[in-house]
Amino acid sequence: MTSSTAEKLISAIRTIPDYPKPGVQFRDITTLLGNANAFATAVEGLAQPFIGTGIDKIAGIEARGFILGGAVAHRLCAGFVPIRKKGKLPHDIVRVAYSLEYGLDEMEMHRDGVKPGEKVILIDDLIATGGTAEAAVKLLGQIGADIVAACFVIDLPDLGGRSKLEALGVPVRTLIAFEGE
Amino acid sequence: MTSSTAEKLISAIRTIPDYPKPGVQFRDITTLLGNANAFATAVEGLAQPFIGTGIDKIAGIEARGFILGGAVAHRLCAGFVPIRKKGKLPHDIVRVAYSLEYGLDEMEMHRDGVKPGEKVILIDDLIATGGTAEAAVKLLGQIGADIVAACFVIDLPDLGGRSKLEALGVPVRTLIAFEGE
Repeated sequence: MTSSTAEKLISAIRTIPDYPKPGVQFRDITTLLGNANAFATAVEGLAQPFIGTGIDKIAGIEARGFILGGAVAHRLCAGFVPIRKKGKLPHDIVRVAYSLEYGLDEMEMHRDGVKPGEKVILIDDLIATGGTAEAAVKLLGQIGADIVAACFVIDLPDLGGRSKLEALGVPVRTLIAFEGE
Repeated sequence: MTSSTAEKLISAIRTIPDYPKPGVQFRDITTLLGNANAFATAVEGLAQPFIGTGIDKIAGIEARGFILGGAVAHRLCAGFVPIRKKGKLPHDIVRVAYSLEYGLDEMEMHRDGVKPGEKVILIDDLIATGGTAEAAVKLLGQIGADIVAACFVIDLPDLGGRSKLEALGVPVRTLIAFEGE
């Protein structure tokens, strides 16, 4: 990405101070999604390195990862597989538990959502501590996916998510970063 | 859509008997989403009538409407605005209550998600009784959107959702139908 492209994306994101709690700067991506030019730029930025590389599926993390992931799947002529909060999928699933700030949660995907060896890109809007993305990588690993990369619009590098995924052998790509959070 | 295109979509959908309760045939669209060819066909079928018509935004209903809506927004070079379950959006919202089988629920969108007069297409995977789609139409109406159409992959015509939206003056497009449900 050029720096002007990154600036376009950054300027399209709304920052909401003290949400969901005091001291947190919430990066609200809905203003980027609603801006046709910025949305197209983000989708192109996520998809571009993988055009023509034979990606089979985009795995999107519920819920904002569905919006970007659906668009990237269309751009790459790939299929889409949803990684969902527990209890939402109707067929045979695989499940993984992961830590939230307070307690545990679980995410699920269909066991036949990806065939062993299929080339998959994981997509979400943002990587912070990397807890949900790490859980998604473990789910995809359980069913034998070839995880080509995990891609996010926003990186919060101070929270260490990238290194958590890289430690699992998954290359990470992000389009923009907000430092010092 | 040609009949062979409709057949392709129908054959890509998995039917799960007696889910989520006895007597219901659940139409599982995840197998369609995961099939790159069927997914591209569905996105093209939803978007095609509106190419070049100056659509400003796609409004997608959480959560499966995010996957299809994100892809259609990308296809039409439009922005995307999420219509979400309550408590998920970080900024100033509009809200509407709607009936579920047991009780009420609420959905929300950002008040500035669509500007008055913007041309919007509402997208979800399926229309059954039309309760959530009707609520979404009311939300978009509250903020002055020009609702060009509501589009769904699947129609369950016996449940009457289409006529509910048409009574509100919203044209409805669906790609395939399962009768007798």
